[in-house]
Amino acid sequence: MNKINLKEKLTYIKKHWDPKIIAEVNDMHVKLAKLKGDFTWHFHENEDELFYVVKGELVLKFRDKDVLVKEGELIVVPHGVEHKPVAEKEVHIMLFEPRKTLNTGNVENEKTKVSEEWI
Amino acid sequence: MNKINLKEKLTYIKKHWDPKIIAEVNDMHVKLAKLKGDFTWHFHENEDELFYVVKGELVLKFRDKDVLVKEGELIVVPHGVEHKPVAEKEVHIMLFEPRKTLNTGNVENEKTKVSEEWI
Repeated sequence: MNKINLKEKLTYIKKHWDPKIIAEVNDMHVKLAKLKGDFTWHFHENEDELFYVVKGELVLKFRDKDVLVKEGELIVVPHGVEHKPVAEKEVHIMLFEPRKTLNTGNVENEKTKVSEEWI
Repeated sequence: MNKINLKEKLTYIKKHWDPKIIAEVNDMHVKLAKLKGDFTWHFHENEDELFYVVKGELVLKFRDKDVLVKEGELIVVPHGVEHKPVAEKEVHIMLFEPRKTLNTGNVENEKTKVSEEWI
């Protein structure tokens, strides 16, 4: 039962699109990531995913709209919903998702990664 | 799929120790609450609980130590672990816990509440 400081943990993240685990709550993982640029269109068959913006701005593209998520804001992407995260400038986010969620969901490509590493 | 602004949602919370739901992720609820004063010693038989401090400072008392959690910090209290939240001044927090988690866990008293209300 130690506290976790998001800003301090974020200093350990060196690469974009490379989420690291900071906590476990029931069957969910809490992760931190730094994003910059475009990600892959994908959906998660069974997993809902929460994005909380710690610093910067994240655009979540859906097939019918774009949502701009700013610092201190969050958005939940329900399972089955296609989405594509885009960050024009670097954004720092906290993610909540079930353990073993594949970052690219139904798609497998060079960005695919299962985060197993704790910081 | 709308974004949620924590500060804006917090304006709807008028009472201390009265968490309101802002989002659902898989089988978890995301809640906001304003705390001030002492809560009840309790534990949750099956549910882990995450406390994230949005504004202010929260002390989480455990039987063997106190942890001061500040703005931008979080702590996970595993199921089965006795704890007592204390806030000398008002603190604003975000909670992640399984649906239907009873706020006072194994204890039932005047503070007991199942949060069912969304804001």
